[in-house]
Amino acid sequence: MSDKSAISPRRNDDFPEWYQQVVRAAEMAENSDVRGCMVIKPWGYGLWEAIQRQLDFMFKETGHRNAYFPLFIPLSYLEQEASHVEGFAKECAVVTHHRLEIGPDGKMRPAPSAELTEPLVVRPTSETIIGATYAKWVQSYRDLPILINQWANVVRWEMRTRLFLRTAEFLWQEGHTAHETAAEAIEETEKMLGVYATFAREHLAIPVYTGEKSESERFPGAVRTLCIEAMVQDRKAIQAGTSHFLGQNFAKGSGIKFQSREGREEYAWTTSWGVSTRLIGTLIMAHADDDGMVLPPRVAPTQVVILPVTPKPETRDAVLEAAENLAKALRGRRFHDERIEVEVDRRDLGGGVKNWEWIKKGVPVRIEIGPRDLAQGTVAVSRRDRSVKEKEFLPTETVVEGIEALLQSIQDTLYARALEYRDAHTVKLDVRDEFYQFFTPKNANKPEIHGGFAFSHWCGSGLCEEQIKTDLKVTIRCIPFDSPEEEGTCIACGSPSQRRVLWAKSY
Amino acid sequence: MSDKSAISPRRNDDFPEWYQQVVRAAEMAENSDVRGCMVIKPWGYGLWEAIQRQLDFMFKETGHRNAYFPLFIPLSYLEQEASHVEGFAKECAVVTHHRLEIGPDGKMRPAPSAELTEPLVVRPTSETIIGATYAKWVQSYRDLPILINQWANVVRWEMRTRLFLRTAEFLWQEGHTAHETAAEAIEETEKMLGVYATFAREHLAIPVYTGEKSESERFPGAVRTLCIEAMVQDRKAIQAGTSHFLGQNFAKGSGIKFQSREGREEYAWTTSWGVSTRLIGTLIMAHADDDGMVLPPRVAPTQVVILPVTPKPETRDAVLEAAENLAKALRGRRFHDERIEVEVDRRDLGGGVKNWEWIKKGVPVRIEIGPRDLAQGTVAVSRRDRSVKEKEFLPTETVVEGIEALLQSIQDTLYARALEYRDAHTVKLDVRDEFYQFFTPKNANKPEIHGGFAFSHWCGSGLCEEQIKTDLKVTIRCIPFDSPEEEGTCIACGSPSQRRVLWAKSY
Repeated sequence: MSDKSAISPRRNDDFPEWYQQVVRAAEMAENSDVRGCMVIKPWGYGLWEAIQRQLDFMFKETGHRNAYFPLFIPLSYLEQEASHVEGFAKECAVVTHHRLEIGPDGKMRPAPSAELTEPLVVRPTSETIIGATYAKWVQSYRDLPILINQWANVVRWEMRTRLFLRTAEFLWQEGHTAHETAAEAIEETEKMLGVYATFAREHLAIPVYTGEKSESERFPGAVRTLCIEAMVQDRKAIQAGTSHFLGQNFAKGSGIKFQSREGREEYAWTTSWGVSTRLIGTLIMAHADDDGMVLPPRVAPTQVVILPVTPKPETRDAVLEAAENLAKALRGRRFHDERIEVEVDRRDLGGGVKNWEWIKKGVPVRIEIGPRDLAQGTVAVSRRDRSVKEKEFLPTETVVEGIEALLQSIQDTLYARALEYRDAHTVKLDVRDEFYQFFTPKNANKPEIHGGFAFSHWCGSGLCEEQIKTDLKVTIRCIPFDSPEEEGTCIACGSPSQRRVLWAKSY
Repeated sequence: MSDKSAISPRRNDDFPEWYQQVVRAAEMAENSDVRGCMVIKPWGYGLWEAIQRQLDFMFKETGHRNAYFPLFIPLSYLEQEASHVEGFAKECAVVTHHRLEIGPDGKMRPAPSAELTEPLVVRPTSETIIGATYAKWVQSYRDLPILINQWANVVRWEMRTRLFLRTAEFLWQEGHTAHETAAEAIEETEKMLGVYATFAREHLAIPVYTGEKSESERFPGAVRTLCIEAMVQDRKAIQAGTSHFLGQNFAKGSGIKFQSREGREEYAWTTSWGVSTRLIGTLIMAHADDDGMVLPPRVAPTQVVILPVTPKPETRDAVLEAAENLAKALRGRRFHDERIEVEVDRRDLGGGVKNWEWIKKGVPVRIEIGPRDLAQGTVAVSRRDRSVKEKEFLPTETVVEGIEALLQSIQDTLYARALEYRDAHTVKLDVRDEFYQFFTPKNANKPEIHGGFAFSHWCGSGLCEEQIKTDLKVTIRCIPFDSPEEEGTCIACGSPSQRRVLWAKSY
């Protein structure tokens, strides 16, 4: 690591502040004047567009279609699903009026005469309103399955917010499906978790554990909640996607009934699954370094930036022309069946300023091209996964022909690095004291840096979870699918246990 | 026209009701339980996705990037821009609380303790909040232009709603740009109107007039409002896209100031431009017929449906295999550089039922393939722009090789038909009585069917506009760009006039 870094403070000095500074330096997002709501800037939104496009393709390949449901949910809908409301609906934006007027003080106010008879809640999630719609669509088993996804904004009133990780308004997708049998719905729940796991690993270059939540961490109203869990660079866990098997709970609340093949009236089995703009926060905390963002090539809004070096007016046109030609040649190649996005940065700014902007934004490949290169038929290539000083001089043709391999190499490096980091901070622990020590920060000034992930036994009791949570702020992130049966004793109470679960601090 | 039609009533019998029935029969959208909010069903949303994808491409080609701004707007923002608020902000959804609680009656209610100190308005449009953000981003002329678009949902509380045409919540895009000079901002305003006009004509197959709004029809706060105006099949006009030159009005309201090249502090010049899900309503009213929707191939969610005819179990597998092979071959072709979307309808339903479903949905090409076709190497092709009974038997290879030409031919036919219809109902009128007669329905039971578009002289007075509007519900849809200077007399008052304007009833 060089002595100077573009981001201050560094990761190891103050992780939360480093995160905010990376978001700012990479021009991803900023806080708006509206409490808890962010402005997603073009570079951050471009990343979200790549995520959307690629996930959407995977949803469609698995038989889903998109639709759109209302932003507002009548209060009475929320009352129908008691356990859901209990866990959810309290902190939300409530619309009570439908008109503004000038008040007696000359200021604008909600018109008292335009109070709604039933307040509307801005959707925190759409199970209830989509359930009410499906209830109208479904009469017979022939109407099933319904396989629909929605891309939308949702609002959950949060008191303490953090860009991308926890905001009052955020963007997400929510899949909502209805099935004839429990088995089909469970299959769907697992299939979509698989889509998320593949996406995290292959597109975001983030290794994840897949498993099921314990009861205390389950989605309100769900029978089973499956999740993918990633480790970020402060060694905390972040839930990067969830898929819920809702049983017949929501179908009963909403009245999604159908006549079965046997002629009986039955309730449908439903699922829901989602990921959000939180993925961007995950991506930053997983890959960024002390010089800013580091983007996996598959989701980078721009994969290659070309920086023309034009010290002398007389060679300027030739350099710019060569830069545009190179851009054109690169745009003609494809990476994972998508067009390679190339930008020529023609701005009249110093080369150093421009170079550092792109480093901080995390663009995977930077190519400098100047008068000397022109003469030699070469360009200078820098990879964001290597030291910022490192440059390789390569013939232009080699760069064009090798661009897919180069991008894939960066993608693979990021995954390998994240996997190595995670594995280096993941342990099996069987002794209670060691467990407590593992999760105790070594430095009181950096409470966010602690042990990491621990696979330890759990007897299945909520009381034990509660104890660990109170003592250490550590929770069960998931009961991994591939966790083998194994005799052991609960890390909290010492009772017999059949399997290890994944414990960690989390976002 | 055949004696029977799939949609009842027919267009000529009750246009508004016919419209609702087409929306329903094509499974485009339905009303939700939330007043004025619609559910956009997969077929309707698929159409919106095609519109989004293609427009988005055009926005990016013209140098724009997407971003995302908050759903909520503080009340005080709206007060900053007086003329904007006057025209706009009264009927909107107002958020006053951020929590729900169980009240003394055991029912859920907004928690009195969680009342917001400043109410938030659900965005009816985002000029004010985006302006406040740009004010932070812009310091110097070097920070300009800002060329940003947002895809979002917006809410305008409407008392009388109609699916796609007028709903409380709708989906749209809103471009917001800021420039150094008035000339640049005007150029942008015109450029984006040009994008909309091209999109309407070439993608939606809808001919449009382009021009400028008179003062009374201008966007609140704008200096100039440009628009594209289409005629639909009840001969009314519908505004299918607008582009506004906002001068420095919003920049002054929001404080978007910059240091100019001359070192002076100046206000930026801004524009905004948008189209919405209303385009889907326009598309339906422009192209649908008495058998349901008729989709232009370029924006159809599915361009080709293959209907396997499987009367006998012993030939079923071979027919299905041939259908899938044909689908695969067609999906390998491209139409306007997009993949051709093909669906094989394998459902176990009668062939007639399936065929009519696709007719009503407006899929451009239906291909039947049965055991006899298999033996002969042919398929039966039906085009949605021709009679529903018409079939052409063609060798499978011919169909595959000719698919782009076939789709383009349907696209061209729809455009030509819409153009012919519009031109047949567009007149130049110079006599006041004739003008009044033209806009008076011939049949009192069908008040929506009247003359059409009239190009007539206007002196420029708002009083004349007002008079015509009061008498006939006819307004100036636009002052066309290509309207030549010509001596004449105002159709309302008889004063001298230099140009004709476009008069029509409108949505």
